Amino acid sequence: MLTAAYTGDSTITVSEAEAQPPAPGQVQIRVAYVGLCGTDLHILHGSMDARVRTPLVFGHEMSGTIAALGDGVTGFAVGDPVTVMPLDWDGTCPACRAGNTHVCQNLDFIGIDSPGALQAYWNVPARVVVPLPVGVALRDAALVEPVAVAVHDVRRSEVAPGEKAVVIGGGPIGVLIATVARAFGAEVAVIELDANRRAQVADLGFATLDPREVDQVAWVEEWTGRAGADVVFEVSGAASAVLGATSLAKVRGTLVVVAIHPTPREIDLQRVFWRELRILGARVYERTDFERAAELVADGTIPADLLITQVVPLAETRAAFDDLEAGRAMKVLVDVQAGQPRTDAAA
Amino acid sequence: MLTAAYTGDSTITVSEAEAQPPAPGQVQIRVAYVGLCGTDLHILHGSMDARVRTPLVFGHEMSGTIAALGDGVTGFAVGDPVTVMPLDWDGTCPACRAGNTHVCQNLDFIGIDSPGALQAYWNVPARVVVPLPVGVALRDAALVEPVAVAVHDVRRSEVAPGEKAVVIGGGPIGVLIATVARAFGAEVAVIELDANRRAQVADLGFATLDPREVDQVAWVEEWTGRAGADVVFEVSGAASAVLGATSLAKVRGTLVVVAIHPTPREIDLQRVFWRELRILGARVYERTDFERAAELVADGTIPADLLITQVVPLAETRAAFDDLEAGRAMKVLVDVQAGQPRTDAAA
Ligand SMILES: [Zn+2]
Ligand SMILES: [Zn+2]
Repeated sequence: MLTAAYTGDSTITVSEAEAQPPAPGQVQIRVAYVGLCGTDLHILHGSMDARVRTPLVFGHEMSGTIAALGDGVTGFAVGDPVTVMPLDWDGTCPACRAGNTHVCQNLDFIGIDSPGALQAYWNVPARVVVPLPVGVALRDAALVEPVAVAVHDVRRSEVAPGEKAVVIGGGPIGVLIATVARAFGAEVAVIELDANRRAQVADLGFATLDPREVDQVAWVEEWTGRAGADVVFEVSGAASAVLGATSLAKVRGTLVVVAIHPTPREIDLQRVFWRELRILGARVYERTDFERAAELVADGTIPADLLITQVVPLAETRAAFDDLEAGRAMKVLVDVQAGQPRTDAAA
Repeated sequence: MLTAAYTGDSTITVSEAEAQPPAPGQVQIRVAYVGLCGTDLHILHGSMDARVRTPLVFGHEMSGTIAALGDGVTGFAVGDPVTVMPLDWDGTCPACRAGNTHVCQNLDFIGIDSPGALQAYWNVPARVVVPLPVGVALRDAALVEPVAVAVHDVRRSEVAPGEKAVVIGGGPIGVLIATVARAFGAEVAVIELDANRRAQVADLGFATLDPREVDQVAWVEEWTGRAGADVVFEVSGAASAVLGATSLAKVRGTLVVVAIHPTPREIDLQRVFWRELRILGARVYERTDFERAAELVADGTIPADLLITQVVPLAETRAAFDDLEAGRAMKVLVDVQAGQPRTDAAA
């Protein structure tokens, strides 16, 4: 079978490897699609070289079908559509003992700390396999992992039906959060600088605003009857957005910081105090987020056609990253089976 | 009677005024003690001139006894020991309608936006009067308001019995928060730079550390079995303390920002993300905080003797502020009845 691996020095090497049978307790997945994301880009650029061991077959947003079951695995059948929740925790650290296994203090992220999905047949522990609803399109199901992030962010915000949420940033992650928040019953407005993205977001039925054209604080005050938003999701990653976000939230409102901020950011603590705001960090997902995400993808709630702008065969993984980086694609999927040799042992 | 008023230009004017009978719905309180606080200092220095109308009889931390009841007031008797929760809300704004009257979007703070307690007889609406437990020392009861702030901070943190809390800053507010958190069942450590304050805090039975002598992150890790603190209270007001505070909290831990930060502060959002932290603003208090604070003062939980370092007559209010500002006192009380003329009409 063909695999795509990060081999250091900004290089992706596509090579032949022999598919291995699943070990006891493992499930072998015939990988269908793998989504490429920002973390994968960081790996490619060497920013995570201190953490990863090369060659690293990476990729952690995926869909597939069960190809084989290792000894002792029950509850799955060959052919079942599945995805993987790529987290492996120790179960013994203080965070795990408190029930927060998804943010285990010694978390292994599958596809970063151990081999990922850019291979035709992938063996993973049965406990990380998440069944997909029957009839789901495997192409769309490669979105379940990023949708699970959005579900986690929205659940963490505790936004309630009928409440109003502002999403700062209308890229792929912002669209997912807006969509999931709406599915949870919230009314959502999206702040976005780019006119094309604003148009896409508006096409999905969300209120949008350009903060250079409109006073965003006044707009939100008006929209919320002078209360302020119940929840604000900061997805843009911009320092100025973080600084302004607290002015959009109601008394006792919530700001969820979704974007990665590699350096400390200024926050208006005076406003946090005055309105008794709550700022929440949200990271990855829990099993319930994955299951909800699979439903939202399967039932068509997630606008997969808008989000998936490119599907390439495994051999073109490197070029796909270039497109992703150049902003020529919202979400790129790798069709892992396209171009695989027909004689593949495990096929 | 004598009153002390801020009359602009850093001036406090002590003058004679005639005590007025309480209007319908009001309670007349014979004021016993008034505590001076940082907000009063801000008023004195003119920082709040845009908000206050002079002459302003100020003071909002107080104790006293009921002197007279206006028409229609029930549930109180002359001679009852009382304090005042100095908040007046509109009841109609979005925050009030959501039940958060204490952070009303049009909140009046009595003693800032309307006359305060530095007068021998003070008329206030009956709804802001809080009964004190029988037998409480009126001197100590002047601490109920700042203790209520601490109770509010600790309640907001949701610290649970057996959990571990770190208080950054061992001044009067830090001591109150540490004391209240312990009364709620938490184990508390206090980080403080000043050796004298550290000694006072240690005398109260708290663990203390000097962050210049000890690696505070390593200390907290060790103290908490590598989990991190359940709750961190940032009371110091220092930018560096805010930046470091997130490294002391456990996965899903809480940082309560208690100190006033007039300019935006850098926060380590990477840590907030990684550990799914929660940052909370906490402002003033609710009725339940005041009632709990009165109990904690009455039952001797609050170390009043340590905190009250000076008691002065009304005529010396100005000098007392100088001592407060120079750091020569933790908490200064004004004994409002000392030096009052004997012929006072309402006496
Ligand atoms: Zn763990
Ligand atoms: Zn109100």
